[in-house]
Amino acid sequence: MISVGIVGGTGYTGVELLRILVSHPMVEIKVVTSRSEAGNKVSTVYPSLLASLDIVFTKPDVAHLKKCDCVFFASPNGTAMQMVPELLSEGIKVIDLAADFRIKDPATWEQWYKQPHACPDLLEKAVYGLPELHREKIKKAILVANPGCYPTAVILGFLPLLESGISKNTKLIADAKSGVSGAGRGANVPTLFSEAGENFKAYNVNAHRHWPEIKQVLETVSKNEVNFVFTPHLTPMVRGIFATLYSVGVDSSIDLVDLYKKRYAAEVFVQVLDEGMLPETKHVRASNQCILSISKPYNGDTVVVLSVIDNLVKGAAGQAVQNMNLMFGIEETTGLMQAGLFP
Amino acid sequence: MISVGIVGGTGYTGVELLRILVSHPMVEIKVVTSRSEAGNKVSTVYPSLLASLDIVFTKPDVAHLKKCDCVFFASPNGTAMQMVPELLSEGIKVIDLAADFRIKDPATWEQWYKQPHACPDLLEKAVYGLPELHREKIKKAILVANPGCYPTAVILGFLPLLESGISKNTKLIADAKSGVSGAGRGANVPTLFSEAGENFKAYNVNAHRHWPEIKQVLETVSKNEVNFVFTPHLTPMVRGIFATLYSVGVDSSIDLVDLYKKRYAAEVFVQVLDEGMLPETKHVRASNQCILSISKPYNGDTVVVLSVIDNLVKGAAGQAVQNMNLMFGIEETTGLMQAGLFP
Amino acid sequence: MISVGIVGGTGYTGVELLRILVSHPMVEIKVVTSRSEAGNKVSTVYPSLLASLDIVFTKPDVAHLKKCDCVFFASPNGTAMQMVPELLSEGIKVIDLAADFRIKDPATWEQWYKQPHACPDLLEKAVYGLPELHREKIKKAILVANPGCYPTAVILGFLPLLESGISKNTKLIADAKSGVSGAGRGANVPTLFSEAGENFKAYNVNAHRHWPEIKQVLETVSKNEVNFVFTPHLTPMVRGIFATLYSVGVDSSIDLVDLYKKRYAAEVFVQVLDEGMLPETKHVRASNQCILSISKPYNGDTVVVLSVIDNLVKGAAGQAVQNMNLMFGIEETTGLMQAGLFP
Amino acid sequence: MISVGIVGGTGYTGVELLRILVSHPMVEIKVVTSRSEAGNKVSTVYPSLLASLDIVFTKPDVAHLKKCDCVFFASPNGTAMQMVPELLSEGIKVIDLAADFRIKDPATWEQWYKQPHACPDLLEKAVYGLPELHREKIKKAILVANPGCYPTAVILGFLPLLESGISKNTKLIADAKSGVSGAGRGANVPTLFSEAGENFKAYNVNAHRHWPEIKQVLETVSKNEVNFVFTPHLTPMVRGIFATLYSVGVDSSIDLVDLYKKRYAAEVFVQVLDEGMLPETKHVRASNQCILSISKPYNGDTVVVLSVIDNLVKGAAGQAVQNMNLMFGIEETTGLMQAGLFP
Repeated sequence: MISVGIVGGTGYTGVELLRILVSHPMVEIKVVTSRSEAGNKVSTVYPSLLASLDIVFTKPDVAHLKKCDCVFFASPNGTAMQMVPELLSEGIKVIDLAADFRIKDPATWEQWYKQPHACPDLLEKAVYGLPELHREKIKKAILVANPGCYPTAVILGFLPLLESGISKNTKLIADAKSGVSGAGRGANVPTLFSEAGENFKAYNVNAHRHWPEIKQVLETVSKNEVNFVFTPHLTPMVRGIFATLYSVGVDSSIDLVDLYKKRYAAEVFVQVLDEGMLPETKHVRASNQCILSISKPYNGDTVVVLSVIDNLVKGAAGQAVQNMNLMFGIEETTGLMQAGLFP
Repeated sequence: MISVGIVGGTGYTGVELLRILVSHPMVEIKVVTSRSEAGNKVSTVYPSLLASLDIVFTKPDVAHLKKCDCVFFASPNGTAMQMVPELLSEGIKVIDLAADFRIKDPATWEQWYKQPHACPDLLEKAVYGLPELHREKIKKAILVANPGCYPTAVILGFLPLLESGISKNTKLIADAKSGVSGAGRGANVPTLFSEAGENFKAYNVNAHRHWPEIKQVLETVSKNEVNFVFTPHLTPMVRGIFATLYSVGVDSSIDLVDLYKKRYAAEVFVQVLDEGMLPETKHVRASNQCILSISKPYNGDTVVVLSVIDNLVKGAAGQAVQNMNLMFGIEETTGLMQAGLFP
Repeated sequence: MISVGIVGGTGYTGVELLRILVSHPMVEIKVVTSRSEAGNKVSTVYPSLLASLDIVFTKPDVAHLKKCDCVFFASPNGTAMQMVPELLSEGIKVIDLAADFRIKDPATWEQWYKQPHACPDLLEKAVYGLPELHREKIKKAILVANPGCYPTAVILGFLPLLESGISKNTKLIADAKSGVSGAGRGANVPTLFSEAGENFKAYNVNAHRHWPEIKQVLETVSKNEVNFVFTPHLTPMVRGIFATLYSVGVDSSIDLVDLYKKRYAAEVFVQVLDEGMLPETKHVRASNQCILSISKPYNGDTVVVLSVIDNLVKGAAGQAVQNMNLMFGIEETTGLMQAGLFP
Repeated sequence: MISVGIVGGTGYTGVELLRILVSHPMVEIKVVTSRSEAGNKVSTVYPSLLASLDIVFTKPDVAHLKKCDCVFFASPNGTAMQMVPELLSEGIKVIDLAADFRIKDPATWEQWYKQPHACPDLLEKAVYGLPELHREKIKKAILVANPGCYPTAVILGFLPLLESGISKNTKLIADAKSGVSGAGRGANVPTLFSEAGENFKAYNVNAHRHWPEIKQVLETVSKNEVNFVFTPHLTPMVRGIFATLYSVGVDSSIDLVDLYKKRYAAEVFVQVLDEGMLPETKHVRASNQCILSISKPYNGDTVVVLSVIDNLVKGAAGQAVQNMNLMFGIEETTGLMQAGLFP
């Protein structure tokens, strides 16, 4: 059994980790921390866990976390980097669902996250936890930077185009739409039901923190600079990311569906649709799947890839558990094969 | 392994059965029927099952179903009764998620369902499949009438009041609110997104088919006639039933929370909240739980019970699997312990 | 032209007042106050007003408000009572959309609103602004307490039953469901989209501030004590109140639809449906209408009245403008005849 | 007074026309047709009109429509072209909200609408009713083709870029998101609440009928061929279109916000936001406004324009009334200045 600790258990990625882990046959949940709810039962805050988890929130405390084999950080950006060095020194494996270890260059990180990095030396050591790209590295990792929700959907969608060189000189656009849970559980006016319901909007059009994260991976894969625009939107649903990806100026006539099917043939959590089928966020709700479709409409030179995930599962907690499975040498799909919730 | 067949696999209770059963460790799905989709892969119609089910819809056909140990009917009212006698004669156990076997009196059934009953002799043999009320009978049953979604929420909420005699001379009101999936997958104007979204309404205020079903059970439990009013409403969410139950004219000062806690102490799928906590449908989404709270507000003589379930799980497919587990002598909770999906 | 001031223009009732008043042919908006947005253009905060209002928020200030003929308070409870005496002394008419002047008894007010009342002597002078009940008094009023949203829907629904004496000895229940905008624009976790969306819940089951307000009016109308239970719920839509009203134990066989039609025959803003028709909140969205239906189902002794309003219009800003029209001697319906927004 | 007839009054554009026209001071609604509801009161089908319209649906009939000065077709594609020649010959002005007269080339029309055109000679005579582009022609028109909802949002967003030549050699992408009411009132499974709610999807990615309509206008304006990709999506809200427009490969450093502000300075129904502000569909709900923002993010060569409208108002019924006002020589904004509904 793997003893697990979760730092920041009151946010949406925290409770989603709990939902998945209470059904994981090889996990024992030892510690769940929360500053605000310390002393309260987890199932009082989240009655959805009433029948499956009998544990009390504790204050975050490294001494307490040392009982664990694996610690997940589902905390705000800047929290994990304060505690990770000590945990690693105790031989504890760490998976950070926030952004502390996603960017390799400390200066870039500090520019986008507006604070000094507490342990820049760990940035190179951390593995970017996208198993479909870095599976072997993850197996050996002690520190995994779990990808952001948008980056997961966007990178999986562009990967075959970049690896194959088809999109080498094209311009890339990611027009991405997220459910409101992606904004977290903080109490803010723009994510109130009365504001976000019956509404559609873009936000952070000129600068979103996932842009440098995505760009870094796309450029590593394509081995040259990419011209990349990212437009995030908020859509009135709780869960799901839908990324409409454009590669503009494609000069190739190869069979793209075939290319994608081959690339992802061995991947349990990526489904490539046959031509004519299109993905919907509802197809992946509550599941760890990513579904892709590829087309080149209007006989033009623009490739359109559609990519859907559940932002809280493949875009956060599910992918984190997938990484844990790899890091601990157990079957990658353990605890993650629940079918999507439809309708 | 239990070989399972599902008649009517394209409706919402059908796909929910599939979602639960693909993760059930002791079930093999052998047959899924659909007149309209026969020949198509189930996962083409429901891509949420792409990674977990590789089977093709077939036309409903008793010969084909005879390979199964257990057949679920997730079909329209009036379908199961045409095929059940032959299946039973072959030793196959049947669980009907529709209404064909819920009402004991054939005349009452025919009055509410506007058709002659095809096998009225089976009505007495069928067990009303509410495990919290009829567990021992279900274990021995060959034919189970799976309760309706509203009846499940309402009966579980009223049960301790009636069994204890507290509500003997009171008037009972169930003001119930359902998510739109309760109306099924038929294409109708009132359940279009543009009509049911951002809208709240009552329907069938003067006559709803769940009224006689609920009344029959309440009267059996209380052993006398009950004065019962049932008002169903449609609320703009996909899943969930919230029943606000009133017992008007209560002359008793016993501790009601304690009464409920004792009644349901051994029930894994019924949670009774401490005083001051209130249930929400989101606490039970995608789970087989029913959560109850009890209060007697404004120092009055009216008891208010709040009861929530997921209409497609404890109100349909989950309860059906719970019944199957009992009928086949395996652990009642097998395949049903997934925590609710929050948010 | 009536010069109008609005105190608390950044909340939902404030912006709704603005929406209605910018199209009102006899109103000039002079002052809109907001502590947090003072100095900003109203249309920057609310771009829905970009084409129709060119005015800047100012800090609340009695000196500034004295330029107005009429001041609306769309502010939190406890604000109006601090400023009203001075405004009245200047001959300015006041309509308070909050609760400061709704309860006649100061002790009751202080018990429910947890603060001392700043001008208890004005409580008797204030007119409870339900035009269908107090039209003549409102015409002469200088201070109107605009009814709460729930009270408007509930009182209009029960009124004919109480006035006629039919419900004299019955027990009254209001099972009321509100859209989330009723909770206001404060940033709170329970009204986040991810919490309130795809969710249904009850709240304040044991004590809601609208209970004494409704009870006071019902008892005045019926001229005796009423046994009244009120259960408010939150439903995942932005606007709308749906009240399901029960009068339990009715001993009468008169034609209730006829009773209601006669009572409201002269009322432009109350529609009584023919038997068999049922109201939906969508029928009144963005309009000042209240729609009612009446039935006595299952041949029983319980009368069921359904009452729908838009909580921000007939339940707040629309009714306030209706009151203003009456107080200033202009046609009651001026600026209020926009049809509902469907779909 | 203008006597108005509406053919196809039961769909969403029909009821939206009624909502606007009942408050239009110079219009009298004479005829509203519906095959399915003939003989029923309009307000029985649409109780939102109970207080403002007392008229009965009639069967569509040219003889009956001849009493009108202006006839709106809110009917399915292919209906208007059957009746328009006769109405025009009687001197009646016609505004078609469907697609019969939007495409100039009959062959193209027949290719996309899969039927022969009944009066191809009228295609040249019809004026494409986008007032911001064709105001003077509309004033003289007897037959106006009211633009589609997507085309309105997309064309208004691209117009200044094309008129100025900035986007001459760029590639244009319209990533457009629509509320579900855009799909109409037909009863179809994909637009059921349980399917479209809590879901986001693309549709008609390879071929949507608005593509040739938009392309025709863009090419006329830019006076050369345009490389244009159009991806429509369905978003879980009732009303609203959000178009994210990309002009890829822009070689210019002029002040785009200034360009747009100048182009639309005289337009009452187009608002250009200052830099840093972003539009939301909720800002224009129930109003005839289009709000635009312009940016060139990440120091790149891609211009991003955001364009929002209410698909049923500026995208259909509101724009139709704007056209009617122009055709009849009355103030263009009459009946159309209602502020948006927020929240």
